[in-house]
Amino acid sequence: MKCAVCRGPAVIDLRRHNANFCADHFLKFCRDQVVRAIDEHDMIEPGERVLVAVSGGKDSLALWDILLELGYDAEGMTIGLGIGDYSTASTEAAVAFAARRGRRLGRIDLRGDYDYDIPTAAAVTRRVPCSSCGLSKRHLIDRAALDGGYDVVATGHNLDDEAAVLFGNVLHWHTEYLGRQRPVLAERIGRAGSGSERRVFPRKVKPLIRLAERETAAYCVLRGIDYIVEECPMAEGNRHLRYKEALNAVEAASPGAKQAFYFGFLDNAASRFAPDADGADGELRACGRCGSPTTGDLCAFCRLVDRAAGHDPVPVELVRPRRGGAKHRRARS
Amino acid sequence: MKCAVCRGPAVIDLRRHNANFCADHFLKFCRDQVVRAIDEHDMIEPGERVLVAVSGGKDSLALWDILLELGYDAEGMTIGLGIGDYSTASTEAAVAFAARRGRRLGRIDLRGDYDYDIPTAAAVTRRVPCSSCGLSKRHLIDRAALDGGYDVVATGHNLDDEAAVLFGNVLHWHTEYLGRQRPVLAERIGRAGSGSERRVFPRKVKPLIRLAERETAAYCVLRGIDYIVEECPMAEGNRHLRYKEALNAVEAASPGAKQAFYFGFLDNAASRFAPDADGADGELRACGRCGSPTTGDLCAFCRLVDRAAGHDPVPVELVRPRRGGAKHRRARS
Repeated sequence: MKCAVCRGPAVIDLRRHNANFCADHFLKFCRDQVVRAIDEHDMIEPGERVLVAVSGGKDSLALWDILLELGYDAEGMTIGLGIGDYSTASTEAAVAFAARRGRRLGRIDLRGDYDYDIPTAAAVTRRVPCSSCGLSKRHLIDRAALDGGYDVVATGHNLDDEAAVLFGNVLHWHTEYLGRQRPVLAERIGRAGSGSERRVFPRKVKPLIRLAERETAAYCVLRGIDYIVEECPMAEGNRHLRYKEALNAVEAASPGAKQAFYFGFLDNAASRFAPDADGADGELRACGRCGSPTTGDLCAFCRLVDRAAGHDPVPVELVRPRRGGAKHRRARS
Repeated sequence: MKCAVCRGPAVIDLRRHNANFCADHFLKFCRDQVVRAIDEHDMIEPGERVLVAVSGGKDSLALWDILLELGYDAEGMTIGLGIGDYSTASTEAAVAFAARRGRRLGRIDLRGDYDYDIPTAAAVTRRVPCSSCGLSKRHLIDRAALDGGYDVVATGHNLDDEAAVLFGNVLHWHTEYLGRQRPVLAERIGRAGSGSERRVFPRKVKPLIRLAERETAAYCVLRGIDYIVEECPMAEGNRHLRYKEALNAVEAASPGAKQAFYFGFLDNAASRFAPDADGADGELRACGRCGSPTTGDLCAFCRLVDRAAGHDPVPVELVRPRRGGAKHRRARS
């Protein structure tokens, strides 16, 4: 197995590119794919300040590392989700990377700062943990980007993630989500209630869309980046992972199928659903508590805090989702 | 396990309907689903003459049986494909059913009538067997319907088939096919060259879209209909079957997923792709040999016959598709 570039010994084969690479040229391949994604979708301008949403997993650490290697002014932000040992180890990986690279890592701890955690929020709301987790992360990272004056938020969604989300959106023909599933969400300017115009949502970009998760993992290994290998214990058996499995089966038989699926969507179908996303936006007001844009009186995050804060922590084991179930297993009191 | 209707002992559970049925109420359920499909999509008017495309498998025999039970004037048509024992047994099942119900079954034999068969066509054209098979069947059945004065052609595509085709079309974002994937293809009137206006394509309908293949199989068993159980040996490992497997995995975890996928498409997405299908049609001429509508000088069927006829039959075993490959294994000469 020889490197497609230098003919030296290869360390990885990329079936969908029908190519093998040595370590150096694989790392270059990864950086090139990120450069191409950023360029093709106008994700980040030179000189802009980037806030990387860091979980401590392979994707977000690879993303942060690549952006730094490419010379971007990228700082990190991580959120302690309170999902037992998994969250502890995730935060440690993020902190270690930031220290090694000498970069600022903003930190929020849900339990310390807002008096709840994801297992407790899942138990209290009786919804899948991923629901309150996604909501919390989106809100807090958007907020940190706006407050910190960052031009853009970068997240580590990779090709497998985007293809699996797309598969889920297509399986249910969630036309609004299909209209919104783009590599870049533009920033939004608005009043969101009284006051002068201001940024109410930061631009959000996904520079890893051209890399598969096997590739971001290999990138971290080759770069000596310690990341948390375990999947989130609360995501086990969830739909997103099932969609990944189904697409993996297709990809195994037809290498490149995922890439064709996702980029074919962007090129040939996404615009047909854009009106559904635009139509769903409506006029935004300011959340009565935190000032974030919302369609109601209180934003979804403040409502979640209202419900979930102040409860005793619910152990992770009691809130694990059932295999195949959309709802979490009811926590015993 | 009790029947959802009469509380008698049930013989089948339908997870996606969250219901069990006894034999009688299951048969009624199947008929009702066909009635609903026909009504909702204006497939067949009372009194119209229906030509059923009969393979001898569970779907086409269940379809023919249900249409007869519902009182439709339905005759059959079957094509001997020359795929070894599989084709022999398929034709036998079709003939036996027609005899038992005392209905006319039109028959064409590719080798006898056109001097080729599907394995030979696949070997000669070097394409997957399903390609020349689909082309041959579509052409000959359309032709038989027009020549025989049938108002409509009914095919046995079930929910699993349609969902798998949709999955394939979506994976590749074949927007033209997406625009055409409807339960009813309207008849087309045209000149197709010189002469007066005439029907150039018959209306084609899929009355089984509300039934899964497990259900059409159970229908045949309960009705005592002998059908060919084997899958076509030449389809083994093809994409369509892989897409079915991927969707089966999703369905197993989320009963009803396939139905939501297919009918959600019809309701919320199909019309967005319709312009792509319309645009692809172009002006039709008459095939110089058979008079069928075509965009070229000779229709695709006559071109296939030109290439495939007159060769010694190629044994099925030499043309089996590779698992995972889009092309057939090259026949040894």
